[in-house]
Amino acid sequence: MKQNLADKHRPVLDAAMHALHERTFFAHYPENPSPDIYGEQADREGRERYEAHLHRKFGELLQQDPEMWVGQEESPYEQQALGVQYPFFSPDTLVSRAEEAFHQWRKVRPADRAAILVESLERLRARFFEIAYATMHTTGQAYMMSFQASGPHAADRALEAIAAGLEEQTRFPEAAAWEKPMGKYSLKLNKTWKPVPKGVALVIGCATFPTWNTVPGMYASLVTGNPVIIKPHPKAVLPIAIVVAEVQRVLQEDGLNPNICQLAVDADDRLITKELAEHPQVKLIDYTGGTAFGNYIENLQGKTTFTEKTGVNSIILDSVEDLDKVAQNLAFSVTLYSGQMCTAPQNFFVPEGGIKVGGETVPYEEVVHKIADAVTALVNNPKAAPHILGAIQNTATMARVKDAAQLNGKEVLSTCDFQHPLFANARTCTPVIYEVDATDEESYSRELFGPIVLIIKTKDTSESVRIAKELAQRHGAISCGAYTTDPEVKEQIMDEMGLAGTPVSFNLTGGIYVNQNAGFSDFHVTGGNPAGNASFTNPEFVIKRFTWVGFREPAG
Amino acid sequence: MKQNLADKHRPVLDAAMHALHERTFFAHYPENPSPDIYGEQADREGRERYEAHLHRKFGELLQQDPEMWVGQEESPYEQQALGVQYPFFSPDTLVSRAEEAFHQWRKVRPADRAAILVESLERLRARFFEIAYATMHTTGQAYMMSFQASGPHAADRALEAIAAGLEEQTRFPEAAAWEKPMGKYSLKLNKTWKPVPKGVALVIGCATFPTWNTVPGMYASLVTGNPVIIKPHPKAVLPIAIVVAEVQRVLQEDGLNPNICQLAVDADDRLITKELAEHPQVKLIDYTGGTAFGNYIENLQGKTTFTEKTGVNSIILDSVEDLDKVAQNLAFSVTLYSGQMCTAPQNFFVPEGGIKVGGETVPYEEVVHKIADAVTALVNNPKAAPHILGAIQNTATMARVKDAAQLNGKEVLSTCDFQHPLFANARTCTPVIYEVDATDEESYSRELFGPIVLIIKTKDTSESVRIAKELAQRHGAISCGAYTTDPEVKEQIMDEMGLAGTPVSFNLTGGIYVNQNAGFSDFHVTGGNPAGNASFTNPEFVIKRFTWVGFREPAG
Repeated sequence: MKQNLADKHRPVLDAAMHALHERTFFAHYPENPSPDIYGEQADREGRERYEAHLHRKFGELLQQDPEMWVGQEESPYEQQALGVQYPFFSPDTLVSRAEEAFHQWRKVRPADRAAILVESLERLRARFFEIAYATMHTTGQAYMMSFQASGPHAADRALEAIAAGLEEQTRFPEAAAWEKPMGKYSLKLNKTWKPVPKGVALVIGCATFPTWNTVPGMYASLVTGNPVIIKPHPKAVLPIAIVVAEVQRVLQEDGLNPNICQLAVDADDRLITKELAEHPQVKLIDYTGGTAFGNYIENLQGKTTFTEKTGVNSIILDSVEDLDKVAQNLAFSVTLYSGQMCTAPQNFFVPEGGIKVGGETVPYEEVVHKIADAVTALVNNPKAAPHILGAIQNTATMARVKDAAQLNGKEVLSTCDFQHPLFANARTCTPVIYEVDATDEESYSRELFGPIVLIIKTKDTSESVRIAKELAQRHGAISCGAYTTDPEVKEQIMDEMGLAGTPVSFNLTGGIYVNQNAGFSDFHVTGGNPAGNASFTNPEFVIKRFTWVGFREPAG
Repeated sequence: MKQNLADKHRPVLDAAMHALHERTFFAHYPENPSPDIYGEQADREGRERYEAHLHRKFGELLQQDPEMWVGQEESPYEQQALGVQYPFFSPDTLVSRAEEAFHQWRKVRPADRAAILVESLERLRARFFEIAYATMHTTGQAYMMSFQASGPHAADRALEAIAAGLEEQTRFPEAAAWEKPMGKYSLKLNKTWKPVPKGVALVIGCATFPTWNTVPGMYASLVTGNPVIIKPHPKAVLPIAIVVAEVQRVLQEDGLNPNICQLAVDADDRLITKELAEHPQVKLIDYTGGTAFGNYIENLQGKTTFTEKTGVNSIILDSVEDLDKVAQNLAFSVTLYSGQMCTAPQNFFVPEGGIKVGGETVPYEEVVHKIADAVTALVNNPKAAPHILGAIQNTATMARVKDAAQLNGKEVLSTCDFQHPLFANARTCTPVIYEVDATDEESYSRELFGPIVLIIKTKDTSESVRIAKELAQRHGAISCGAYTTDPEVKEQIMDEMGLAGTPVSFNLTGGIYVNQNAGFSDFHVTGGNPAGNASFTNPEFVIKRFTWVGFREPAG
């Protein structure tokens, strides 16, 4: 490969590897979509480039001889088809092309692979706004989240995976002189070790975070020498198609086979995910999505899998300093993207005796009202609400909100009607809130994906913690928020939720939310409960993608 | 814990962690059973201590209230019962005691756990000879192998696992101040991370290497905070019972629950392995043994497993400098412990056109004769043979050797009779050799555990490599020996066998053998083919035993 690419990107890779160990703040791609940073025309040009894709064939991919052109995306803001068409290839074609590309890619040195992949991210930087509009009109995310999550945050998560993969592959010496003293003489061997990639990788995307949840596995498999087939959710293809196109372009410029990274799209009448996943040549699978399909993926024989499924996230309320600030923070967390984040909280545990606020006890009912009032105030704020809520990605989520009225709960907020000021036809929904009793396990023991909050009345904080832990152990959890001013209770929560493999954010108020998750610092999903078996980006996330193999020979 | 233990063992842990990265020669426990090293009386005392166990209850364990006393070991050298009896506990008792001990052990800091575990190895050092005799009379290994494999080599492998586990658990900071610039202000969080152990661990041992194959998983689970239940093969309990007893003693001296490490023994009429493995509280399983049971273990739901099953190991003969030296080296490899090593070679691939020796071509038939003659010379050498062969661990292996005559092969050496000079009643067998054709896949496509060698006539070296690779990919392989003087062929073998996750030893002659495997340098089993899903000791072997969980809170 071109030597200048390796030299050019070494500093950012070094910084990223350093950040992985420090785990202090690090971000290579600015999350602020300001013209000062990205240029005066970036937003407008990005929107125009997005619009230019509509009702056309997506012609950027370097994958030859499509069998047909397919596409089924529609905008949650406009509830009409985007009309973008993508080339369709049968699973056998995709896998055999990947297999062929494998034997070229695996021979590229890890450091050179890393440089090529960072180059692809640098190219993407110029397309963050285009990707943002593509994300808005497939996922329903609001503009700011679309920009940040699909652009800079995703690119940083990709960089994190590249850095972790490079580090793990260069962790042991390429060669060592081994000399064993045997008394009068020595046994001398020359030894070498190779990180051997496992083979064809498949990455199965989800409809809500089409780049953020896809690029970690994609770049982790690529940096470790595996060719990748990206199979996005059929309703959210465009954002990741742009990513794949940029990777292919860099590969081709470097004289490499663009099929090292392929896009695989479902046809209307032929869903190809299972065919791909079950293909004997597919060795690695990354998956984000529902639990049932995730369990199917995890149980496939002979595959190494990395899953993020669903979880039931809890908020534990014990004692706070300022209940209004807490309520505002929580209201934002459940309103953000209308609760369609895997990190969004669902179950709020409040003791029947109320909670301590400063020195005083605030009764249970008042806590419930404070939370409901904060949500109502936020969704009624016309300057804020549309930019936080976004739209609802699919109709099943709308139906789930309606069905929540059938829960054995007491309604607190039950209507989710919201008129979007910019998109008259947008599919929207503000958070609904129901109260249920701790004894009514059936109501709260599953993920209710979307803007649905359950306030669960418990005997005391110990019961809150016990239930939150058991839910995480049985049904999975990706986040937990806890509010306590008591160091012993804090210690207890850390200990119990830690055993349930669930990260805990304590006492968040102000501009930081339990939903948020920082690259290079926060491990996203732990792999330690049924919410998923992998974590962005712990060492396991990269080392399971290759095998250390040693070779030895007597020294000269 | 006692501070002096942490201080005392820090230097060896540092040296071990350093060695893991350098991968040059490192051994903390001397493999030479010389009186100069271990003391004048060590051997005699060790034998006496071993003999004192016979026909008695093994009373050293600190596990309370046994339900009965059981034991079914017998010496392959004497073919009579050892009569050692061990306390029996039902699986529920073992698991509930482990669960209780878990909540104490997990709160001991990783560095303190590591120090306690190193202390147990230091205590074992004084019992290496006793363990050696216990190993001889359960496995049938010869004296030298019994000493080295079960004593110093096993202790070094245990130390390697402790060091790897300590390093991985201290790889990320315990705490970091995270500060995100937000323009006019900063978001500040205090973050902490914990490596949370997964829970009760089970280690299932094998009959041929009762400590060497057990201690890596045992110490890896312990150092990462998991309580361990050691379930040895019922025919090889004593060597590992001594190890467990020493660990328990150190734990108790340090004020900890000895049930952090328990011995679980089968009763004659109640095999408890499956009950333990399927117990919902058992989260981690290490296994060494046959493929069918290993596959069952790997497929258990909700468990993290580490397996070493069986493999079909190949020797590829292409070109050599000195055929006699090569034949002698290979003869030793197949004779050592009568082929009862997972690393012993089975299938020797020889091209029908012969191999290059120096500048000359030596015909196929002559290569076969050289190998057979070298085996015959070795087993007929009364000074060497008994000390290399040892005895046959079980009667099934004897039957397998007899059955080899039914293969569709041409017999080269077919009798395995051998009279042991010291043990008149020893169950012994020297290597048998059969020639089969490359087209006769059925004969050579499975592990024939024991002293059975197949010489497979191929068209050429390319066919040899292709078949060796396919066998490794389909049936697993733990070692491969290759002989070639051609750099291109060497590169081809490295590439192809690397893809099959199989380490290759090239051109071994003299005092180093394909069977041998050095702690801190050679990864034992790669995890990259069906011979097993784990490797001693790559990072994956330890990090899958715990979960990284993060906690965060706004900074004051």
